[in-house]
Amino acid sequence: MPTLADTGEDALVHRLVRHLPLGDDVLAGPGDDCAVVLAPAGGRHLLLKTDAVVEDVHFLRSAPPQLIGRKALARAISDIGAMGGTPRHALVTLVLPPELETTFIEQAYAGMSALAAEFGISIVGGETTRGRQVVISIALTGEATSFVRRSTAQAGDAILVTGALGGSITGRHFTFQPRLIEARWLLDHHTPTAMMDLSDGLGKDLPRLAAASGLEFAVEPPALPCNPGCTPVQAWSDGEDYELLFTIGQPQVAALVEAWPQAFPELPLTVIGRLVPAGQGEEPPFSRTGWDPFAAPGT
Amino acid sequence: MPTLADTGEDALVHRLVRHLPLGDDVLAGPGDDCAVVLAPAGGRHLLLKTDAVVEDVHFLRSAPPQLIGRKALARAISDIGAMGGTPRHALVTLVLPPELETTFIEQAYAGMSALAAEFGISIVGGETTRGRQVVISIALTGEATSFVRRSTAQAGDAILVTGALGGSITGRHFTFQPRLIEARWLLDHHTPTAMMDLSDGLGKDLPRLAAASGLEFAVEPPALPCNPGCTPVQAWSDGEDYELLFTIGQPQVAALVEAWPQAFPELPLTVIGRLVPAGQGEEPPFSRTGWDPFAAPGT
Repeated sequence: MPTLADTGEDALVHRLVRHLPLGDDVLAGPGDDCAVVLAPAGGRHLLLKTDAVVEDVHFLRSAPPQLIGRKALARAISDIGAMGGTPRHALVTLVLPPELETTFIEQAYAGMSALAAEFGISIVGGETTRGRQVVISIALTGEATSFVRRSTAQAGDAILVTGALGGSITGRHFTFQPRLIEARWLLDHHTPTAMMDLSDGLGKDLPRLAAASGLEFAVEPPALPCNPGCTPVQAWSDGEDYELLFTIGQPQVAALVEAWPQAFPELPLTVIGRLVPAGQGEEPPFSRTGWDPFAAPGT
Repeated sequence: MPTLADTGEDALVHRLVRHLPLGDDVLAGPGDDCAVVLAPAGGRHLLLKTDAVVEDVHFLRSAPPQLIGRKALARAISDIGAMGGTPRHALVTLVLPPELETTFIEQAYAGMSALAAEFGISIVGGETTRGRQVVISIALTGEATSFVRRSTAQAGDAILVTGALGGSITGRHFTFQPRLIEARWLLDHHTPTAMMDLSDGLGKDLPRLAAASGLEFAVEPPALPCNPGCTPVQAWSDGEDYELLFTIGQPQVAALVEAWPQAFPELPLTVIGRLVPAGQGEEPPFSRTGWDPFAAPGT
């Protein structure tokens, strides 16, 4: 099987970009110093996100390459979605060991391309270089007329999560569906006061959302929606759920909880607690608090 | 000296983003799922670029961290400039070994921030994760009303380069100035038919530019502008010059060569050859043809 050292950079790039989905708004795609695209239409904002997956941190090289590529892009889509945006253009930066089989990265690109096509994203360029570990870094643009931040929640707001949490390592960290449609529906039909996607685990991300709004939180462990076979500790700590975590004023909760199952009959929505003023928060329900990339494995 | 494992992700990010330059057009910067910025004004295009520097490939960890950070951003600015654009917003993806000293990445960020301020760029977000080598991946947006591609040159066009080439490893690969003003001046006052920045060396990049236009080239080795102490072979092959390589119709050469020194008295401009129809190209003047990231070191 030929390696990247056999194939060389230019031939590799040629193979990777020849079948990419490109929208009509791409004026210059792969093959120039940078990509040129039509700017968002008047009144729409430009959203910018970057995210990387690293071998032995976010995936093992023995995993299906298509799923590795899919995951890299899906994580960035999840972030654009959690802000209320629509993804538009992606750039792919690859750091690759020269001994890597060329087919590995072709298949990873195929996984990315398929997901890009599904979400109407054009892959408009990128960069390829050498390293000791495989790194796939995605830069993704999006656009939105309205968006929701993490820092705009109010004390008393209800805290909700979509879907079920925990145990993503068994497969969902590769196959999750970014909650793009759900996030947009929330912004269009209800009034979330703050929102983010759950990437590092509720135990890490909920404190971030509360702190961004200058608040603390009170959650009820029995309310945590757990994936089959998972404990509430796992739902709190495992991470890589890529579900939506959001807050909404208490007077709006009933209407949302009633409307949700008609819009998304397959996807649970759960009230897990409420935000409280700083100094009035309860202790986190579990000592394991989610994922820190710089902590020693297993801690 | 504290390491990243001591500092942890959230505290690191807090330290890195607190002094970032942010323009008035940034609606949501670091601290949300993605950044939100004002879209380019009507009639302007959006330019997108990503680029990465990798430890032991583009820099050694023993180099001054400020210069490593500066280089990472300067490379992407060079690409936006070579297309004729103005850089606007940057996202920074860091892959960092947990044992890295926290000051290393703080200083690298300081180098990036200083260059960002110099070019009016807002650093609006990024991502931080773990890996075995330091990787700094930059995603940079820009905008332009007009732009110039690699693929639009004509047979017969003169080939020109700015500055002098070769020997960048002695320091210029860290301290080069992206040719942003020069590129914009060329587009505003003359009519370059194709343009790119020289990152992998003339011997690699000129064939790319010619091939993108379906052409070949004839260069005169004695015409190559060499940095002090460098041979024409080095000017052809060393790479990381980050000078502009561009083409222009022969009838326009004289006016350009006359006007250039008044606009840029410190920076040489050299005609090094011409583009020719496919099949009529001369052999490359030297067998060393520039840098391929996947080739074995020293080849």
